[in-house]
Amino acid sequence: MSAAAAEREKRQLARLRDELLDLQVRLRREPGFALALVIAGAPTAGRSEVLNELLEWLDPKYIHVHAFPLRDAAARKAPPLARYWRALPARGRMAFYFTGWYEDYLAAALHDGAKKRGASRREIERLRRLESMLSADRVRIVKIYLSLDAKTQRKRLERLRADKLTRWRITREDLRLAKRHERVARAAADCIGATDQPAARWRVVDGADERKRMLGVARLLRDDLQAGFAQSSRRRAVRLPPPLIAAPAMPTEPEQRIGDDDYDVALAKLQGRLARLVRRGRFRKHALVLAFEGMDAAGKGGAIRRITHALDVRQYRVAPIGAPTPEESLHPYLWRFWRCIPERGAITIFDRSWYGRVLVERVRGFADKADWVRAYEEIREFELQLAESGVIVVKFWLNVSKAEQLKRFKARDEDPLKRFKVDEEDWKNRELYDAYQRAAVDMLRRTHTEHAPWIVAPGDHKQSARLIVLAAACEQIERALDRSD
Amino acid sequence: MSAAAAEREKRQLARLRDELLDLQVRLRREPGFALALVIAGAPTAGRSEVLNELLEWLDPKYIHVHAFPLRDAAARKAPPLARYWRALPARGRMAFYFTGWYEDYLAAALHDGAKKRGASRREIERLRRLESMLSADRVRIVKIYLSLDAKTQRKRLERLRADKLTRWRITREDLRLAKRHERVARAAADCIGATDQPAARWRVVDGADERKRMLGVARLLRDDLQAGFAQSSRRRAVRLPPPLIAAPAMPTEPEQRIGDDDYDVALAKLQGRLARLVRRGRFRKHALVLAFEGMDAAGKGGAIRRITHALDVRQYRVAPIGAPTPEESLHPYLWRFWRCIPERGAITIFDRSWYGRVLVERVRGFADKADWVRAYEEIREFELQLAESGVIVVKFWLNVSKAEQLKRFKARDEDPLKRFKVDEEDWKNRELYDAYQRAAVDMLRRTHTEHAPWIVAPGDHKQSARLIVLAAACEQIERALDRSD
Repeated sequence: MSAAAAEREKRQLARLRDELLDLQVRLRREPGFALALVIAGAPTAGRSEVLNELLEWLDPKYIHVHAFPLRDAAARKAPPLARYWRALPARGRMAFYFTGWYEDYLAAALHDGAKKRGASRREIERLRRLESMLSADRVRIVKIYLSLDAKTQRKRLERLRADKLTRWRITREDLRLAKRHERVARAAADCIGATDQPAARWRVVDGADERKRMLGVARLLRDDLQAGFAQSSRRRAVRLPPPLIAAPAMPTEPEQRIGDDDYDVALAKLQGRLARLVRRGRFRKHALVLAFEGMDAAGKGGAIRRITHALDVRQYRVAPIGAPTPEESLHPYLWRFWRCIPERGAITIFDRSWYGRVLVERVRGFADKADWVRAYEEIREFELQLAESGVIVVKFWLNVSKAEQLKRFKARDEDPLKRFKVDEEDWKNRELYDAYQRAAVDMLRRTHTEHAPWIVAPGDHKQSARLIVLAAACEQIERALDRSD
Repeated sequence: MSAAAAEREKRQLARLRDELLDLQVRLRREPGFALALVIAGAPTAGRSEVLNELLEWLDPKYIHVHAFPLRDAAARKAPPLARYWRALPARGRMAFYFTGWYEDYLAAALHDGAKKRGASRREIERLRRLESMLSADRVRIVKIYLSLDAKTQRKRLERLRADKLTRWRITREDLRLAKRHERVARAAADCIGATDQPAARWRVVDGADERKRMLGVARLLRDDLQAGFAQSSRRRAVRLPPPLIAAPAMPTEPEQRIGDDDYDVALAKLQGRLARLVRRGRFRKHALVLAFEGMDAAGKGGAIRRITHALDVRQYRVAPIGAPTPEESLHPYLWRFWRCIPERGAITIFDRSWYGRVLVERVRGFADKADWVRAYEEIREFELQLAESGVIVVKFWLNVSKAEQLKRFKARDEDPLKRFKVDEEDWKNRELYDAYQRAAVDMLRRTHTEHAPWIVAPGDHKQSARLIVLAAACEQIERALDRSD
């Protein structure tokens, strides 16, 4: 290369550095989106170097770098994408991912036999859906693959090894991968082909020349940040996805109210059944998520306590879901729920849940229509991923009538022990009773699935509702344990 | 018991429930302290039942229940108390701990041979210090041991086993422990004797009668909450702890500035040495914490980048420490740092650190004197715990002169790439240069230890300072790896 060309590139780099720093400052001031930069690539193509250099250019306080080891035993206890979800950047920030969520994919493509090469269709689908979901939820994704021809790679390795001061940079894994240059390239091409999509395009940058590769990466990053500012206010037209089931029955009254004595016996039996189920050895291959939804005073708390009464405090956790904190608001919607997913053998009971988006946030107008409409499919995918990794998911809609709700509000107001349970918000929500019911029907029809069913429990008689809830929980667990031979 | 006595107890329980709920609401409104309730006890003495009942009485949204399994392989990767630290309640909240941080202690007392019975002195010391630190940092600790005589325990187990509906409540571990009633009681007595202290008294409640035990626990909880409100404004007199070392030399200028060419060679050599060290197999039994402190523009960022340059992005994390978030402010001071401690084999580089309390918070008056004075010993204990579990800790004070700092501020103001690095706060801190220096000397003298040494690097010549930092990091790692045969 001529000296003049080199000088030109250096000037371009300096300008890019300036532009990127300005864009980062602007992103912090106008946190309309987050940016996730995934850098994958061949050994010695410069992944570490590029990330290191970007960290030197930018203010590292507002950037998280994530590198995920191949999934070990501990990671395998959680759904495959859980750890990536937990590591997402808040809006206004950037995160850099060393290989990102492609680590396992690429490793599988390399290490398995020819037959098992690459990821299964479902694995690919999961990655694609993750990215389209993030993209819709204002996380921009820049995916860069640093390629390197075999000859340059060989020369680079030789040069690094020849020098005592740089020899340490080369790992055994690097050498192993370099020997299989063809196969690595093929696996990468497969991966890129399968996971390139409008929401998250792959870009290939040649890693052979250090300056050129840095120019390439920095330009892609700059262009994407600029596009983010240009686009962040645009909103697409949205339409409700088609329902999965016909309109569900929405009884508020059980067929027959159970008597007090019968209730006590039935309750103890069901609690015993539940307790034995979650203590079975086989349950340790699973986890349990119970989600409770329903209008205020529908009886969620009481039903949850009848369940926890049967459990050991060491095994479960109740996660009460309220309005998101400021930090949670800056993340993709499902982020905070991913962080509550139980490990194998454990139980999380959600007192309200991720359905808030299509219930309270929809009815009260806290979420844009585009966001809550999108949520049905996001939630389906979320629950499918849980089910795929052995998490048993059961969802309860406690259906209380308007009249019964009023009675309970009044009773609470008079009870010093329960007064704290009714506040202005609750009365406001009550005015919207009919809108909530419509939202609940839409929700039930669009998110009732085989692997994450809704149970509608008539809420006007608390005792009956509790038995229905307990029985349904037991049945779903039994079904899952029977299947998991 | 007479029917009248039973009625009286029921009324007392109802009143206590009312009082506790009021106190919980008050605690949320006046978040002057947090409360940690530890319930330990003999099998079937009612630990689960008591916690369950308290959760039914109170608003569970603001209570976390924590139960820790015996430390498994994953937990052993972190210092023993790390998981308890991470689970501390914020002020205004309560947390209930099933056996709490005594799980391992009690298990060790039971399972080990007579010789190893009980915990080592240091283990006990750690627990005592944890509790006195929390207590000083406005976490009230209520420790209750539910006792149970052998006969009642036997009868209770028999009754539970006789009934098909309750049989599931009994685990094999319960039976095993019940058979060793004497030994369990002795271990508990040892534990209570060794860890009872003014900051966290043990209370023993007889678990034989369900109502009486609930009355006992609820009263203790109520009394402690009331004491918390009565006390939360009281402040003790405080005195600086004696220094550990004589006044350290505080050079801002190296003995000799290194030339540019020599610097490049020396830097590459040290980076290679560091890189090889953290890739040694033996390093995986350790972890590395590097903490950087120094005035603004002292060169922390540059020194950190020279270190990260030698590392693989997958192995390290830079944790920039700024003003605490609102959530962090509600927790004990060291809480947020415990959450950043690296796992075995990993590296965390702190860009500013837990020393903020005795530097910026002291100098600017952000912390009460009682709090920053206490911090020296808290920090020593914190670092000792890290060292005990194999974490290599090295701390750097980059010592820049007032004149050189001014020069750098001005240069930054003129450089569009670095402008963002100087803000009003920095200029304000600069005015307090002398106060910072005094605070730094106090800090160095009181927290320079064998296992977590301070390195004072003369900061006026960046290149020299970087080499000193790198060399010291390498030496400390080498020393630790040599010792860990």
